[in-house]
Amino acid sequence: MYQLYYFPGNANLVPHMVLEEIGAPYQLVLVDRANNAQKSPEYLKLNPTGRIPVLIDGDLVLFETAAICLHLVDRHPDAGLAPALGTKERAEFYKWLVYLTNTLQAELITYFYPHRMTDDEAAAEQVKRHAEAHISGEGGMLDILDAQLGQSSGPWLLGAHYTAADPYLMVLARWTRGMANPARNRKHLARFLEAMAARPAVQRAFEQEGLKPPLY
Amino acid sequence: MYQLYYFPGNANLVPHMVLEEIGAPYQLVLVDRANNAQKSPEYLKLNPTGRIPVLIDGDLVLFETAAICLHLVDRHPDAGLAPALGTKERAEFYKWLVYLTNTLQAELITYFYPHRMTDDEAAAEQVKRHAEAHISGEGGMLDILDAQLGQSSGPWLLGAHYTAADPYLMVLARWTRGMANPARNRKHLARFLEAMAARPAVQRAFEQEGLKPPLY
Repeated sequence: MYQLYYFPGNANLVPHMVLEEIGAPYQLVLVDRANNAQKSPEYLKLNPTGRIPVLIDGDLVLFETAAICLHLVDRHPDAGLAPALGTKERAEFYKWLVYLTNTLQAELITYFYPHRMTDDEAAAEQVKRHAEAHISGEGGMLDILDAQLGQSSGPWLLGAHYTAADPYLMVLARWTRGMANPARNRKHLARFLEAMAARPAVQRAFEQEGLKPPLY
Repeated sequence: MYQLYYFPGNANLVPHMVLEEIGAPYQLVLVDRANNAQKSPEYLKLNPTGRIPVLIDGDLVLFETAAICLHLVDRHPDAGLAPALGTKERAEFYKWLVYLTNTLQAELITYFYPHRMTDDEAAAEQVKRHAEAHISGEGGMLDILDAQLGQSSGPWLLGAHYTAADPYLMVLARWTRGMANPARNRKHLARFLEAMAARPAVQRAFEQEGLKPPLY
């Protein structure tokens, strides 16, 4: 049985949705982030980066949300949550998964924690404002993703094929919900988010983490 | 034949090394970054993010360095540059590849381009200094990677198995060479970098991009 270390609404929500789609047995293990448990010596043994989530699969201790998604789709090929190896579609799946983790998620972390990059409030305010502009400004990351959803003719990033990149996009889109121009303001992203929210696996993951509307 | 869009020493150096290891035919296509060609309408059609590299594989136009690496290792399984699908070792490969792209590379981009996050020199200086501390300070990203190399009993990230994550680490380690405490200062990273520089495929990639010592 898998174990997924989580804190409600954190990046764990992505593999949580993937596990619900797969239907494999798993346990959720709460990381008491309110008490900084993700920086405890015990947790750092699982994940030296001190970030959430971690997935336990037998003697495998895996961190990095995108890596957990890739591992789960590989372990459960029958769930069809990734295209076949060596295909053009698999490459597109990698492309968007990587873009989500190294660009949109990385910038969101800067947006939420600008003090990690700065010494004073004035500089932190600058960093936060620039991060928001990169994410939700004109021609920014959300616009690039909206264009891809439009090109794919949807409803998913890869068109008709629902993959593990889709819950990743939903969770990161959700994190923009407090911005002036959140993901849901865009035509294709709005349709995508609605389609995601209608999936029973997605609804179960939200419920199990105790997350209430507005979901995105 | 593959085409790899590149600029000397940019992230393209990673898939360049991978292509040399594989021995597949490819062409290098220079992106004239000195004239901002990566932001030209023609290039943005290939890669809407305006970043380098892009790989062309028939009708596949692929961006994101980590995605290009994953696609190449999948297309050339005989080269053995990634562990078998569904294994614990494959998951570890994903983990380090993702960590390199979304954490070390993302922070290096902030380090090199702090003005993207700020309005004035004082704030940019703060951002640059914090990024350097996250990367090369005590307990930072390079220390985490050094610890992994020590635990794997090396010389590679996954131990005896050389994978596409290794050239990724070398290129990012190389980008720290101007820092006060660069990657090469660490015991296991020093040994790793020396072993990388001894590989003929790595040497050919450096030569073809016209890169001169010090390489890291």
